[in-house]
Amino acid sequence: MTILERRDAGAIAHLRMNAPEKLNALSEEMLDALQAELDAIREDRAIRAVILSGAGKGFCAGHDLRQMQAGRQAEDGGRAYFTELFQRCSRMMMTIRTLPQPVIAQVHGIATAAGCQLVATCDLAVAAEGTRFGVNGVTIGLFCSTPMVALSRNIPAKKTFEMLSTGRFIDATEAEKFGLINKVAPRADLEAETVALAQAVTEKLGAVVSIGKEAFYAQAEMELAEAYAYTGQVMAENMLMRDTNEGISAFLEKRTPDWSQ
Amino acid sequence: MTILERRDAGAIAHLRMNAPEKLNALSEEMLDALQAELDAIREDRAIRAVILSGAGKGFCAGHDLRQMQAGRQAEDGGRAYFTELFQRCSRMMMTIRTLPQPVIAQVHGIATAAGCQLVATCDLAVAAEGTRFGVNGVTIGLFCSTPMVALSRNIPAKKTFEMLSTGRFIDATEAEKFGLINKVAPRADLEAETVALAQAVTEKLGAVVSIGKEAFYAQAEMELAEAYAYTGQVMAENMLMRDTNEGISAFLEKRTPDWSQ
Amino acid sequence: MTILERRDAGAIAHLRMNAPEKLNALSEEMLDALQAELDAIREDRAIRAVILSGAGKGFCAGHDLRQMQAGRQAEDGGRAYFTELFQRCSRMMMTIRTLPQPVIAQVHGIATAAGCQLVATCDLAVAAEGTRFGVNGVTIGLFCSTPMVALSRNIPAKKTFEMLSTGRFIDATEAEKFGLINKVAPRADLEAETVALAQAVTEKLGAVVSIGKEAFYAQAEMELAEAYAYTGQVMAENMLMRDTNEGISAFLEKRTPDWSQ
Repeated sequence: MTILERRDAGAIAHLRMNAPEKLNALSEEMLDALQAELDAIREDRAIRAVILSGAGKGFCAGHDLRQMQAGRQAEDGGRAYFTELFQRCSRMMMTIRTLPQPVIAQVHGIATAAGCQLVATCDLAVAAEGTRFGVNGVTIGLFCSTPMVALSRNIPAKKTFEMLSTGRFIDATEAEKFGLINKVAPRADLEAETVALAQAVTEKLGAVVSIGKEAFYAQAEMELAEAYAYTGQVMAENMLMRDTNEGISAFLEKRTPDWSQ
Repeated sequence: MTILERRDAGAIAHLRMNAPEKLNALSEEMLDALQAELDAIREDRAIRAVILSGAGKGFCAGHDLRQMQAGRQAEDGGRAYFTELFQRCSRMMMTIRTLPQPVIAQVHGIATAAGCQLVATCDLAVAAEGTRFGVNGVTIGLFCSTPMVALSRNIPAKKTFEMLSTGRFIDATEAEKFGLINKVAPRADLEAETVALAQAVTEKLGAVVSIGKEAFYAQAEMELAEAYAYTGQVMAENMLMRDTNEGISAFLEKRTPDWSQ
Repeated sequence: MTILERRDAGAIAHLRMNAPEKLNALSEEMLDALQAELDAIREDRAIRAVILSGAGKGFCAGHDLRQMQAGRQAEDGGRAYFTELFQRCSRMMMTIRTLPQPVIAQVHGIATAAGCQLVATCDLAVAAEGTRFGVNGVTIGLFCSTPMVALSRNIPAKKTFEMLSTGRFIDATEAEKFGLINKVAPRADLEAETVALAQAVTEKLGAVVSIGKEAFYAQAEMELAEAYAYTGQVMAENMLMRDTNEGISAFLEKRTPDWSQ
């Protein structure tokens, strides 16, 4: 049994976290496995979208608390270990952001702490009815400071602060209302709905989606005038792609494009 | 027949894009006409609000694809042309933002690609029931990178990315829910509702609305402390205006203000 | 009768603005009283949350217009006075943000202009059904430029601009929908609901909530990579706190934590 299963179906890579006895906790092993697969997918031109899900009763319950507590045995009480662990986790989260292919979270059961951060970090997300989302580390004395980086860039400030400071959960309906996820689906339809969303992405030109994803996050951190100068260049380059020429021509001629990919 | 009609009614300038056979595409001619009228309105002290609408079946379908394809005939394959075209379009969008008068989009039918960007760029927007909004260039191989600059500053990140990467449309109800527009109106009431919103602006002091609009977008790109230092100065200057003194006095004395404008 | 009442109940400090005849206007006296109490609470380790409410018919109607008008008597027409007044008000608002303890607005009746800013500035907010929120200074010629700094960081851009430029009010239901407040409660339950929210905060470790609050606003103004580097350090430090060790251990051992505070 591997801690992270990968199954490719057409242009979609399905990554399934597989440590159900730990609610798919982001242990060192899980973080390393995710990092390795994402790095491999980055170079895999056959893959145009990634679906990330969890085996068992929930999506992901955040860091592996037993493993973290064991880190206290070091001479420095764990300082170096904890510092490195959060860096490792953030590096994996940033890898999702910089991956050329969109990553879609397929969420059920619970998504808490760094598990909720994972949902917020993915480009898109679909959740089953009844899924509960929380950044509730504060309840046991560990404020979800890294998860809030992703969460606060997805949902309104007061809602984020409420979840962080009270540990309160929101359900899938609220998550959709505030923008944390794209869609709520009945549990039985969750995978089909997530695949349908992924296919809406994979039927597009992979190279075009990739430059778009990169530009999306880059411009978000720029001032307006700079963002326009930058994205104007991105669009001009996009226009010069052979397949874009063909795509526009086909549209104008009401025919199917003859794309090279 | 002019490509952009202007009709003034009181303090409101109605600009109507008038190329219905092209769904009011933002051709070079349309961009230039919009730029010229906005530049003229900037100097026109009689105008306190602008309503932007489209003739025919929809508001605006984005760039003129036939004209863009023709740009490929140049020796450089269109590189210089495309670069200049997106700069020209962004300059017009920024002109809406920097115009002293608020600009209100009156939207019906469809608003796609740069047409959706136009809605996102306007200060306010009202749409008819059934209006569809999309940044669906990805479908033909051209990611809506400049439209996303405006759209992502209006609605939540995951919703924006879904529209960009799948080409999915949202309807007027969703657009209101997520903040892209201010109000949905029955098709028959669209113009009346938009005019009512404009009048709620034009009955205010034009000079005050203008300094407020400028400050609104300026402070949005500042850190909190800087934003307070800046807007504190703006309010102190505002207090020193003759008509503001009169407005506050009239309010305290429960009478109608005797404003100079 | 004091202009600002403080009543402590357990770990919660209740601050009640008490100038009902002026709808609890933020006069110089009210601003100074708020500043003084917040500065005192900052040093009071027994207090883990603050609830801010208003006596009488409404929460707060913004600046004291009569007092402001009197400021015009100065030789410079009030320039120095107004500049200092807005600085003083912004300093009080920033104090809420930098206070170690979360501040919760308990809102009823109306919250207008700087009163609406106060709600937007608090970390959390609960409002009674029927409460009206507005930044309607534009109606009397004074654009709510400092209030918009807080409001535009809470709700979508077009909704903020509509309120600012038309003076239109939103009700508690809309305020919740767009993220200005966390919850709407029946008028009779407002205090109980606000206290329940405060208790959900105060039952957590005060020191942990404080480092979380500081990090929450600090990371919001950083780029993503910087935000992760910073919050990773914050979490590593959090892990090294004695009570956090105990909290995690207790959780893993399914027992109640023996916290030192």
